[in-house]
Amino acid sequence: MTPVQALLQELQDTWHQTIPVSEFMQICPRRYASDCFEASAPLPPNLNLHQTMFAGSIYTLMTLTGWGMMWLKQREAGVEGHIVLADAQIRYLAPVTGTPLARVQWQDGDLSALAEGRRVKLSLTVELFSSGTLCATFTGLYASLPAHT
Amino acid sequence: MTPVQALLQELQDTWHQTIPVSEFMQICPRRYASDCFEASAPLPPNLNLHQTMFAGSIYTLMTLTGWGMMWLKQREAGVEGHIVLADAQIRYLAPVTGTPLARVQWQDGDLSALAEGRRVKLSLTVELFSSGTLCATFTGLYASLPAHT
Repeated sequence: MTPVQALLQELQDTWHQTIPVSEFMQICPRRYASDCFEASAPLPPNLNLHQTMFAGSIYTLMTLTGWGMMWLKQREAGVEGHIVLADAQIRYLAPVTGTPLARVQWQDGDLSALAEGRRVKLSLTVELFSSGTLCATFTGLYASLPAHT
Repeated sequence: MTPVQALLQELQDTWHQTIPVSEFMQICPRRYASDCFEASAPLPPNLNLHQTMFAGSIYTLMTLTGWGMMWLKQREAGVEGHIVLADAQIRYLAPVTGTPLARVQWQDGDLSALAEGRRVKLSLTVELFSSGTLCATFTGLYASLPAHT
């Protein structure tokens, strides 16, 4: 197991052990490279009554993808912080009929304030694809609070 | 069982039988009176790693509360339509530390176009309370598509 694989496994364990809904949805980190993080989930536990992916599941997968990117970047920077979502916007563009893939690209966010005991606020944009089609866009404002406060 | 209670039971059955996540979260309709609809969910299956309600669960409960209001109003009006969420915004104001109650008030929405085979689009605002404190606000744009198309 590479260091990145171990980190993604730890992220998945953190989600599944502390957020029961994430375990039920079977959300799992997929890939982290070149400042791009991807996460996915199988369709069956996340269906709606139209037999496509439930709007709530789409949102939750995208929210955790952004959260996971913050978590990974904090680990890389060697800083700690409690990551919470302050607000978010989502737009549903097309039904998700196959396995979803949520993707977020890190954009020069600066986490150094955490080491000085100050909070960080960062906006992250997540895209969700299914069979190569962009099905939803999400923008979330994440705050990370110094672990000591 | 009153007619309203029967309607709320049918709504809950619809959710739990067609949206597995809603059953796992134990989302249930609570009250429908005076154009106000309320829904809730117990905290344990909806916790996050801070032992408060998970942001994804908060969003999902609020989304389904708005959806439920559309469904109830369509039933009252005797019209049918497939209800989907087009976009949404959510703001998290305070941690949800007790049982959440999501509330939506109907605002003179007109569903009559459905009977004429045309789609309806309506914006609904949902508020979520815990122990009397407003913890989150949500605005969703719902579309209802004529059942025949």
